[in-house]
Amino acid sequence: MNLETARLELLPLDPGRHAEALHAVYGNAAVMRWWTCPPTGSVEQTRRLLADELARPGATLWALRRTEDDLVIGMAGLLGGVAIPGLTWILAEQVWGHGFATEAATAVVDHAFQHAGYDRVEAWVESSNTRSTAVCRKTGLIERGRLPQRYEHREKPHETVVFGRAKKPDPISVLHLDPVLPVADVPATVELLRAALKARVSFTAGEPADVAGLVFGPWSTGPGVRLVRRPAQECAPLEFTLDVSAGFADLHQAVVASSVTGIEPPADRPWGTREFAFRLPEGHRIVVSTPG
Amino acid sequence: MNLETARLELLPLDPGRHAEALHAVYGNAAVMRWWTCPPTGSVEQTRRLLADELARPGATLWALRRTEDDLVIGMAGLLGGVAIPGLTWILAEQVWGHGFATEAATAVVDHAFQHAGYDRVEAWVESSNTRSTAVCRKTGLIERGRLPQRYEHREKPHETVVFGRAKKPDPISVLHLDPVLPVADVPATVELLRAALKARVSFTAGEPADVAGLVFGPWSTGPGVRLVRRPAQECAPLEFTLDVSAGFADLHQAVVASSVTGIEPPADRPWGTREFAFRLPEGHRIVVSTPG
Repeated sequence: MNLETARLELLPLDPGRHAEALHAVYGNAAVMRWWTCPPTGSVEQTRRLLADELARPGATLWALRRTEDDLVIGMAGLLGGVAIPGLTWILAEQVWGHGFATEAATAVVDHAFQHAGYDRVEAWVESSNTRSTAVCRKTGLIERGRLPQRYEHREKPHETVVFGRAKKPDPISVLHLDPVLPVADVPATVELLRAALKARVSFTAGEPADVAGLVFGPWSTGPGVRLVRRPAQECAPLEFTLDVSAGFADLHQAVVASSVTGIEPPADRPWGTREFAFRLPEGHRIVVSTPG
Repeated sequence: MNLETARLELLPLDPGRHAEALHAVYGNAAVMRWWTCPPTGSVEQTRRLLADELARPGATLWALRRTEDDLVIGMAGLLGGVAIPGLTWILAEQVWGHGFATEAATAVVDHAFQHAGYDRVEAWVESSNTRSTAVCRKTGLIERGRLPQRYEHREKPHETVVFGRAKKPDPISVLHLDPVLPVADVPATVELLRAALKARVSFTAGEPADVAGLVFGPWSTGPGVRLVRRPAQECAPLEFTLDVSAGFADLHQAVVASSVTGIEPPADRPWGTREFAFRLPEGHRIVVSTPG
């Protein structure tokens, strides 16, 4: 199905027909700086990359032809093989800054809601990619959360912003989940988690405290736990994982320098993360995880 | 300390001197639509409101005088009595849309970092207040998370976006905390939490599943738990709270209609929330909370 916007025609992506024009995009390091893989080295590689994307179940991709001069200047569409329809686009560097990405993305979202029967779309954007985050906002997507991610060809993980737009407003919005951690000594645990994980106290009750709210991270809101005082023998050990996008090594150093015990050194896990762990006196196991 | 921008002078707020001009702002319902309290009814009320704000420990507030015509068109500054310096501003309706808020907020943030010795500022903005979220972004603050909040004079809670800017980039970024919930039957618990709390499965392992990731909310990222299979007698009961900004009644209905047990009906808590709770077969207690 062809789509049309004020300045673009969206043509169903045909790797054979479009690879040559799109190789100027996929072969350009400045564009691919933000992509999930390195620049392609040949038209043939670009063709294969496009074919692979198109082969994923549910993928609906278009080549973007500028009406003015019939030039193919990029690609946009919905990714295949994802749980929630994923908005994707890529644009030749020389046409950046003229609103073409927003124009194409808007047409794709309209198609998703009005013809494809989807009720929501997401776009995953590296947090430092300010051009693409602006495209998301102009296309009506808002920030829904962040994830640590590492692309295969990169050494380090980065922070990915998950943007999303729903066809209709969501009636339910769950913003936080705070587990309760029963501990024998609330102030001592606060000190331990401050030293080991840079936790911050958001509230306490009692003197000395028998309840405390802890937040991981420097802001008023963020992942956290509530500590409650219980007799040691009633503190059934529980486990939680902290996902970090930056500071894995710093946190490990701080944990080693603190007085926690049962430290399990950093190791790569079969499910693709790198993790270390330690224990609180009651046996609670805390895992710190980052993309491996 | 006076501050100056291209078009504004920022004068230390003096309730006696500035209340009359600022009453046009604080007395206007269209402006106060976004404020934490209703419009003031008189200059005297405005004066008292300003004096109260100024009296909070650490408050640093300025009246905004437009250089062009010496008109006092608003207020900006840093809130007192908050854990993290809180950027605040208010502007007369007739001068909206000309960049004055961004101009003032930028001067305040510069002051906070260069003269007041702060290393971060936050701004709490109602999520539907698109003018103010734009001011935050133009002032270099980014979204750090969301909170459910209810202003005293309003009937319903809303979603507050916590924007923040740090003087220097943070070396550590903790994005998620996932508690592990030991359960006797992973697939049965998945079904229970799907029905009761609209949970979504993000991953499973094993057939039948002995591990599953659950997310609360419709997006790829969000508050979640991991379920792991354990013999029933080893499933020490734990507790967690879900904070919701919308859908409290819907969730309660769904919980009542599901097959969970140990339902504690909605009640107002002394710490300012309204909560209901229920239990999973292993005794895990799940609390659903919203601003009361």
